[in-house]
Amino acid sequence: MSESWTLGELARLVGGELHGDPGVVIRSLAGLEAAGPGDLSFVTGRRYFKAAEQSRATALLVPPDLRIPDRPSIRVAQPYLAVATLLHLFHPERRPTPGVHPTAHLATSARVSPEASVQAFAVVGDEAVVEARAVLHAHVVVGDRCRVGEDSVLHPHVVLREAVTVGRRVVIHAGAVLGADGFGYAFDGRRHRKIPQVGRVVVEDDVEIGANVTIDRATLGETVIGRGTKIDNLVQIGHNTVVGADSIIVAQTGIAGSCRIGNRVVLGGQVGLADHATIGDGAQVGAQAGVHGEVAPGGAVWGSPAVDLSTARRIAVAMPKLPELLHTVRRLEKRLADLERRLEARGGEAG
Amino acid sequence: MSESWTLGELARLVGGELHGDPGVVIRSLAGLEAAGPGDLSFVTGRRYFKAAEQSRATALLVPPDLRIPDRPSIRVAQPYLAVATLLHLFHPERRPTPGVHPTAHLATSARVSPEASVQAFAVVGDEAVVEARAVLHAHVVVGDRCRVGEDSVLHPHVVLREAVTVGRRVVIHAGAVLGADGFGYAFDGRRHRKIPQVGRVVVEDDVEIGANVTIDRATLGETVIGRGTKIDNLVQIGHNTVVGADSIIVAQTGIAGSCRIGNRVVLGGQVGLADHATIGDGAQVGAQAGVHGEVAPGGAVWGSPAVDLSTARRIAVAMPKLPELLHTVRRLEKRLADLERRLEARGGEAG
Amino acid sequence: MSESWTLGELARLVGGELHGDPGVVIRSLAGLEAAGPGDLSFVTGRRYFKAAEQSRATALLVPPDLRIPDRPSIRVAQPYLAVATLLHLFHPERRPTPGVHPTAHLATSARVSPEASVQAFAVVGDEAVVEARAVLHAHVVVGDRCRVGEDSVLHPHVVLREAVTVGRRVVIHAGAVLGADGFGYAFDGRRHRKIPQVGRVVVEDDVEIGANVTIDRATLGETVIGRGTKIDNLVQIGHNTVVGADSIIVAQTGIAGSCRIGNRVVLGGQVGLADHATIGDGAQVGAQAGVHGEVAPGGAVWGSPAVDLSTARRIAVAMPKLPELLHTVRRLEKRLADLERRLEARGGEAG
Repeated sequence: MSESWTLGELARLVGGELHGDPGVVIRSLAGLEAAGPGDLSFVTGRRYFKAAEQSRATALLVPPDLRIPDRPSIRVAQPYLAVATLLHLFHPERRPTPGVHPTAHLATSARVSPEASVQAFAVVGDEAVVEARAVLHAHVVVGDRCRVGEDSVLHPHVVLREAVTVGRRVVIHAGAVLGADGFGYAFDGRRHRKIPQVGRVVVEDDVEIGANVTIDRATLGETVIGRGTKIDNLVQIGHNTVVGADSIIVAQTGIAGSCRIGNRVVLGGQVGLADHATIGDGAQVGAQAGVHGEVAPGGAVWGSPAVDLSTARRIAVAMPKLPELLHTVRRLEKRLADLERRLEARGGEAG
Repeated sequence: MSESWTLGELARLVGGELHGDPGVVIRSLAGLEAAGPGDLSFVTGRRYFKAAEQSRATALLVPPDLRIPDRPSIRVAQPYLAVATLLHLFHPERRPTPGVHPTAHLATSARVSPEASVQAFAVVGDEAVVEARAVLHAHVVVGDRCRVGEDSVLHPHVVLREAVTVGRRVVIHAGAVLGADGFGYAFDGRRHRKIPQVGRVVVEDDVEIGANVTIDRATLGETVIGRGTKIDNLVQIGHNTVVGADSIIVAQTGIAGSCRIGNRVVLGGQVGLADHATIGDGAQVGAQAGVHGEVAPGGAVWGSPAVDLSTARRIAVAMPKLPELLHTVRRLEKRLADLERRLEARGGEAG
Repeated sequence: MSESWTLGELARLVGGELHGDPGVVIRSLAGLEAAGPGDLSFVTGRRYFKAAEQSRATALLVPPDLRIPDRPSIRVAQPYLAVATLLHLFHPERRPTPGVHPTAHLATSARVSPEASVQAFAVVGDEAVVEARAVLHAHVVVGDRCRVGEDSVLHPHVVLREAVTVGRRVVIHAGAVLGADGFGYAFDGRRHRKIPQVGRVVVEDDVEIGANVTIDRATLGETVIGRGTKIDNLVQIGHNTVVGADSIIVAQTGIAGSCRIGNRVVLGGQVGLADHATIGDGAQVGAQAGVHGEVAPGGAVWGSPAVDLSTARRIAVAMPKLPELLHTVRRLEKRLADLERRLEARGGEAG
């Protein structure tokens, strides 16, 4: 926090076009409203233009089509990406020092890299492996036969049940539970008999998993979260579901068992996917949608039950007109019946 | 539990009007069905009148418009408020004794009031502050640079990530996670790059937060929960969202990032608010509604996507008539076409 | 895993009809795609027939109406039940050895059976009872005056607040919170005053509760989960709700306070039940439905707000036709007005 940069240095770092004095000193990054002298702020779209003008920031990071007169600025094609870069610069991540806290409990058969950090009251089970530079925060439980890859961070109270594999550079937020039993029972006519859930969970590299998320182990085989996929808080993922790479799953979405989610899929918040649903590569599912069956690659659906997005939008516009429509049709029926009577009467006359 | 009161004492305490013998002895408070001799029970509305007559309670707390013959009773304007008062009387809260449990782990730079209580396996990080009479239950993690205000209670397994500020008299239920990273990525054309989340969470005085709730830290700046707001279980609150004072957020509601929720707002269960939604003071959002954009102060909305409550109710009534309406309109079309043909024919005749 | 069985032994065990050589050796059970030589796989319905033909499994468990030529098979009336039996055989549950881990913290007044297993950093409160063969995994918190019955398993980080009773053979998955305060406040005109929640939670025998589930204690009296009921992850159950026996509650469902759920009820995923909802025995509520009021025994409902299932399905089919219907009716109105005008004109002529 005590370091500072010149605007010229920052412009070069983000590959942007500098307008104004390159020697201006920037001490930190701040939102438009909170920013003051010495701060660089940022405008990610037209709707923030007014706020940008009123901001007290010393300089601004702006998209190519914006120009704030009389203010030093760095113009970049994608301001949000530049913000990501600068946040890493101004707020370098602090990793805890390597080593095992004296209160942690490691099974004798566990293998923990001397470069890993294991914090207070963490538990590592039999034959579990924790690789170099991995961090197990306070109260993390790594079950028997789990593997936590290099540079992965498990925040406080994360639970990995037995035989869960976590790749490299994975972040799992506090309270997430990976590897709980899938929800499977067979009704024998009298009671629900438990189907033992003896499969695993595999989390590939560069995945991020939100706080209090639950990802169940497979009945047999694997529940898989593909490389680079990001999962928000309180999401549920059922047994044997396979999620592809670079997908985005927003908070509180529930994915039932045996689903297939492709690559670069986006599932909005509070979405529900029924058992065996299939979501093709690049498909998008709108918030609160309920999906049975299949969404084609590149498709976009919304609504509960979900239909294609353009239909769903037209339904959403039409819905508030439905109550009045009922009245209209009732009036039409009367007018039509009236016409029919009159025409019958004429017909009679005519006859 | 061993104490007892007379009906007269209780009537005075709640400011109620006594009917019957003030010397009747009351040993505890119970629901209408469970109540027996020695119990005071309560009727909070007309729909419980029959159950009240059948109750074996010795005496009843009743609203002004109810009269149960032959039963001692205390009449009060708001029975529910009186129940709150009497529950505090009959079940005084037991706070653990002050002091730090020998198994707890406190950073040397943490400042914990000698009047605070820190239970088994709790962890308090660097430069964290725990004020007088605060209670950290078993396995609570208070991150670096956090502050927990006077008289606040953090139930087992609560996690405060770094730099979270909790006011006075706040209650946080088990498993809640405050300060996990907000869900922010910038797609660089190949992968989702993480936007570092370096802001904070601020919880003001007298807030209550349910079990397994998740409240994310801001990207920059603060995520704020305003004074006196009550949040039910499994609610998700995204980064940079600001919730006002005295609002009620029912279970499993999801609030995305950068939302503005006013004072005395009520969000029903399983509501979803999209990014940047604004809910005005005193507005009400019905259960399972999905809100984009803005709800005016004092407004009431429902449905997904949400519309104003009266429209939503009329839609809900109209919806089951929609399938029949399709048939009706198809029949109308035929009758109309038939009429048109007949009229054409006549026109022909007439011509 | 090192054991093996003959196909004849397995057929007898599940009471199935053997086709092929009874001496074939089976080493493990696998899904159709993953199976290879030495594996028994299974077909639970017609839709897996093709996958079964292509499977490299040595033998197959099939329903009565399927026949895979040239493959040893066991025919059973209910393959899923047979799979449950065989999974128990091939993957016998490993229970931790009895005893209390040296890092666990037990109150001196707690009574823990010598046959129970209490793992690292578990906490057992004052006057709590843990019965024979119960397992408290790492970081479990059993509050004061709780009781955990014989053979029950509490996975890591489960929290039982005070006075929660858990029956026999109950499984509670990681991160579940039982007995947090119900969500009850009385507004006094200025602020929300907390109604103390002094009741309990009772979980009967053979219940299973998913990861990060929250079940609140009653205001007064009991919140009850009936014998044999199975609850999936991230479900919320409010104060004073009573759930009957052998019901199924799928993930992320939210049940408000004072609901009555019967026996053998099925609530789909992400269902919402409003305060005081009543669901009769054997009723089914479809995924994402929102229920106010009552569902009759044996009833089936869907939609938000929920209506009977057949109506809900017809609504779902009709909905995408609504936008076009609006246009149709508008056209009908015009045609009708036109006819009326023409008839008026003729009437004029005729007059």
